Amino acid sequence: METKTLAHSTAEKLVQYIREQQLAPGAKIPTEYELARMLGVGRNTLREAVRMLASRNILEIRQGAGTFVCEKMGVSDDPLGFTLVSDRRRLTDELMEIRCIIEPSIAALAARNATEQELTELEQACAAVEQCIREGQDFTAADQVFHTIIARCTHNSVMSNLIPVITRGVSVYASETEQECVQTVRSHRRILQAIRLRHEADAQQAMLYHLLYNSYRRTKDSDSV
Amino acid sequence: METKTLAHSTAEKLVQYIREQQLAPGAKIPTEYELARMLGVGRNTLREAVRMLASRNILEIRQGAGTFVCEKMGVSDDPLGFTLVSDRRRLTDELMEIRCIIEPSIAALAARNATEQELTELEQACAAVEQCIREGQDFTAADQVFHTIIARCTHNSVMSNLIPVITRGVSVYASETEQECVQTVRSHRRILQAIRLRHEADAQQAMLYHLLYNSYRRTKDSDSV
Repeated sequence: METKTLAHSTAEKLVQYIREQQLAPGAKIPTEYELARMLGVGRNTLREAVRMLASRNILEIRQGAGTFVCEKMGVSDDPLGFTLVSDRRRLTDELMEIRCIIEPSIAALAARNATEQELTELEQACAAVEQCIREGQDFTAADQVFHTIIARCTHNSVMSNLIPVITRGVSVYASETEQECVQTVRSHRRILQAIRLRHEADAQQAMLYHLLYNSYRRTKDSDSV
Repeated sequence: METKTLAHSTAEKLVQYIREQQLAPGAKIPTEYELARMLGVGRNTLREAVRMLASRNILEIRQGAGTFVCEKMGVSDDPLGFTLVSDRRRLTDELMEIRCIIEPSIAALAARNATEQELTELEQACAAVEQCIREGQDFTAADQVFHTIIARCTHNSVMSNLIPVITRGVSVYASETEQECVQTVRSHRRILQAIRLRHEADAQQAMLYHLLYNSYRRTKDSDSV
């Protein structure tokens, strides 16, 4: 019990150290020996604290190379507990409902805040989706990258962290028809163009249309028309 | 390495078991002995798998009582990695930006979907905030409960999981003036009333007004007027 508390508080001190030093993702932290001395704890306690932070995606232990600030910056692998949801179809509906609410505004903020460098990345991501489609490959992953870069263009780090989480849960593209692929390409280009031209309202509408098109086609089987 | 892989896959099998049995939060899972037999692994491997799931808030080990499905249902304690953010003021701005986008729509969905039972809970949460204010206490926690219950009223579990995460990060109420407290009480009552009357558009606007009032007052120090 005593040891556990000590490992916990050591882990918190380590987090504080990373924050104060403003260590970037990928930065190497001092050796076990140095950290143990710095924080005034034994090496076993330190090792336990490091393991705790590794399981939270705050640190990453690379065998033989040392310990680094994790690229995931503390964002869990399954932050909102989707693993436990048994009704996957309902989960997808719920995620689409959230995306329709949040992503149009994100597109507008992206149009306002994107840097030239980010616009270039967004163009590349758009092209990558189109290439997958041309080659008849599953473009789920490429599509997620496109939406994640738009979120990053807002310069709101909470949005950048959140969007991959809610897009990762949705994988409805496997069954897309040719007509629907054409629609995806058009929608993506329209969104990209609006963001590039800094047309916030247009970016917002183009994103809303894109997501609603995908929501509605998912339910078309149950439509009576 | 071998053991680690086995513990990992055992953990996955356990998650699958919870999902298939549709075990609710708080449900007790079989004993270590039964699980080990059921999954065909040794007790050490099983124990490691259980510990892994406990660290992910999927299981909860209660000393002497057994192992249970965690009430947090796999939602991490800090899902989006706020612990690592050094600029707390900026984090608060970012969270308020997201809340202004997402919570008005959540209020509208709550007005559409809330059950009578949930409306009663929402009334109680509203009253709890008012009591804190009357007694001059910090009402941050009570306020978070109010907003979380609204999210639960949407019957979208992703929203119910997400709202506590983004409200927990914001604690700006400590410095609230009397005038601002009066405003909070009024806004909350207006939101509650609209949800109770099933007025979706009113609920949406009342929530937007409430959040914008809080956003704008946070920045008033830097205003030139």
